[in-house]
Amino acid sequence: MSCDFIALANAGVQALQPYQPGKPIEELERELGLKNVVKLASNENPLGASEMAVEACRQAAEGMYLYPDSSGFELKNKLSDRLKVSPKQITLGNGSNDVLDLIARAFLQPGRSAVFSQHAFVVYPIAVQACGARAIVTPAKDWGHDLDVMAAAIEDDTRVVFIANPNNPTGTWIKKAELEAFLAKVPENVVVVLDEAYVEYVDEPEYPNGLDYLAGYPNVIVTRTFSKAYGLAGLRVGYAISSPEICDLLNRVRAPFNVSTQALAAAVAVLDDADYLQKSREVNAAGLKQLGEGFDQLGIEWIPSVGNFISFRTSKNGEPVDAGKVYQGLLHKGVIVRPVGVYDMPNFLRVSVGLESENARFLEVLPQVLEAL
Amino acid sequence: MSCDFIALANAGVQALQPYQPGKPIEELERELGLKNVVKLASNENPLGASEMAVEACRQAAEGMYLYPDSSGFELKNKLSDRLKVSPKQITLGNGSNDVLDLIARAFLQPGRSAVFSQHAFVVYPIAVQACGARAIVTPAKDWGHDLDVMAAAIEDDTRVVFIANPNNPTGTWIKKAELEAFLAKVPENVVVVLDEAYVEYVDEPEYPNGLDYLAGYPNVIVTRTFSKAYGLAGLRVGYAISSPEICDLLNRVRAPFNVSTQALAAAVAVLDDADYLQKSREVNAAGLKQLGEGFDQLGIEWIPSVGNFISFRTSKNGEPVDAGKVYQGLLHKGVIVRPVGVYDMPNFLRVSVGLESENARFLEVLPQVLEAL
Repeated sequence: MSCDFIALANAGVQALQPYQPGKPIEELERELGLKNVVKLASNENPLGASEMAVEACRQAAEGMYLYPDSSGFELKNKLSDRLKVSPKQITLGNGSNDVLDLIARAFLQPGRSAVFSQHAFVVYPIAVQACGARAIVTPAKDWGHDLDVMAAAIEDDTRVVFIANPNNPTGTWIKKAELEAFLAKVPENVVVVLDEAYVEYVDEPEYPNGLDYLAGYPNVIVTRTFSKAYGLAGLRVGYAISSPEICDLLNRVRAPFNVSTQALAAAVAVLDDADYLQKSREVNAAGLKQLGEGFDQLGIEWIPSVGNFISFRTSKNGEPVDAGKVYQGLLHKGVIVRPVGVYDMPNFLRVSVGLESENARFLEVLPQVLEAL
Repeated sequence: MSCDFIALANAGVQALQPYQPGKPIEELERELGLKNVVKLASNENPLGASEMAVEACRQAAEGMYLYPDSSGFELKNKLSDRLKVSPKQITLGNGSNDVLDLIARAFLQPGRSAVFSQHAFVVYPIAVQACGARAIVTPAKDWGHDLDVMAAAIEDDTRVVFIANPNNPTGTWIKKAELEAFLAKVPENVVVVLDEAYVEYVDEPEYPNGLDYLAGYPNVIVTRTFSKAYGLAGLRVGYAISSPEICDLLNRVRAPFNVSTQALAAAVAVLDDADYLQKSREVNAAGLKQLGEGFDQLGIEWIPSVGNFISFRTSKNGEPVDAGKVYQGLLHKGVIVRPVGVYDMPNFLRVSVGLESENARFLEVLPQVLEAL
């Protein structure tokens, strides 16, 4: 038998290119025989985990033989108090990737389309493609989303618009006035996803809190995650906040036990760890400044970012340099950053904000790598 | 604005009825002010967790700020050794529910169909419906799958057949000869899912190990889980074993970080805990015997099961009794079992195998509840 199963798969799935995660430290150490590798590739929290979250996970470990609470009762109640929304507006996910997938699976299928921007988070095209829907990709403006163009790109079959605010990997963000003008233009039957995975890092007065728009725009879904500022990337918890109607739909598609007992416990605990969150923000703000100043000193172009990462152009004496070669050079010096060719940014790399010493190591090694090319 | 988002959703999603999990112990204790509640509702491992798995989870807790290993390198290698398959044949999932969803999302969409049996595991109709595909449900024979009827039910647009062996909630199983005759009849372009969530409990010489058929039938996918005999239900780990081609397809749809760091660590650890697995099997075999004999003494009809649960007919003096009333009566006595109306078995309840004392409590309370009706 020699059946072609690729040909039997749904058309969207046939053309799928899976997400490429950042290279794990162990893998690089194994491959190159290196030690003390610094990973600044996956926008993880450089502080390590919250002690309160670690303790909660450990305490929950013995309960692993029982199924998780499918309703996420305690976590939803805590988020509800914190965010001033009803638990009936919250959908929990196995990371916000799961939530983005649920949205796509609820509203997208062959014959429907979704709008998102050039350079936007790569899970959007993957989720859209997996559902067999059509992607409408609009050109970026100054590396960020051009909301006028995005609104104009909506077609009759469009069901979802994805907006990353701030966006990964560019770190760009949308102001209140822009977002409000956009929402007023979008037809009410088009779902607008405001992906706020990095919201905790943003400290800009003109930055819009997506939750403020839920009452006026029942087509808005805000997505957030515990993977970044809360430091739970390994445990997988994210969530959506929406109207109860959309929440009901997402929960129909949601696998009943999509968030583990240990993840639920750690998320509840970390919400009480105000010091950890505050320190995460401070370390990130200092690191953004450190990296920006370092790039300036090296004469390297970089995109101002409000996330926990910066994308920079690979160049030497003002001339472009192959990003893949710089990535490989950094690897051989024990520093892992992230190629962003898949984001239509072939001449850039993305570096996550690390601890001061990690950022310094990156800034020390980068000119050495460029020099050697 | 008053948009009808249900109407905007994909047609399959509009009609979805979400999975109803077993009632959590805390919820019942809260509602009825009861203590010492016994939950025999979710086919969980009554031994509690493996100490080796708990220790591994605790040790992995501190790594929660880093993303999981997307490739599941260590777990796949260990499974590969154990099962004598290549790591390229293994797809990891957030529970086997995730794996079943991935199969549906890879091969099913509007205009395609899937075949499964009456009384089969309820995730099949949900996964098929969520993809907007058509469900072809074949009548059961003696509560089990009728493979002749299932083979005959395959249509031109059928892409997947789901077979639960053993089946939940009936506990019925398919013999080697039946399965082999079936596989020989299924067209090579139809994927056959052999769902072996309860495989570790089965001790029947005529029971077919699905892995034995992968070489001869590249359209076979075997799915398994760590939630039952391995006692990791709360952590969420399941997997599929298939041809490398199908594995590649499933991994295109798979979210890159669908299994947590802690789940991966616990799964690796529990595979080395041979004593735990052995004890799980022994406790289960003894419990099945205890429950079967108990039902016989009470004159209650039950379906012989090779799983870790038994479905029984709610009756009194040979006359049918409303299963909902028996379920409620048991709840008020502090024993949670599982209604199976959604499985087209309105006059049955399913009881999971517990510890000897838990089974005894159930068998003691059941006649009291029936008497009071």
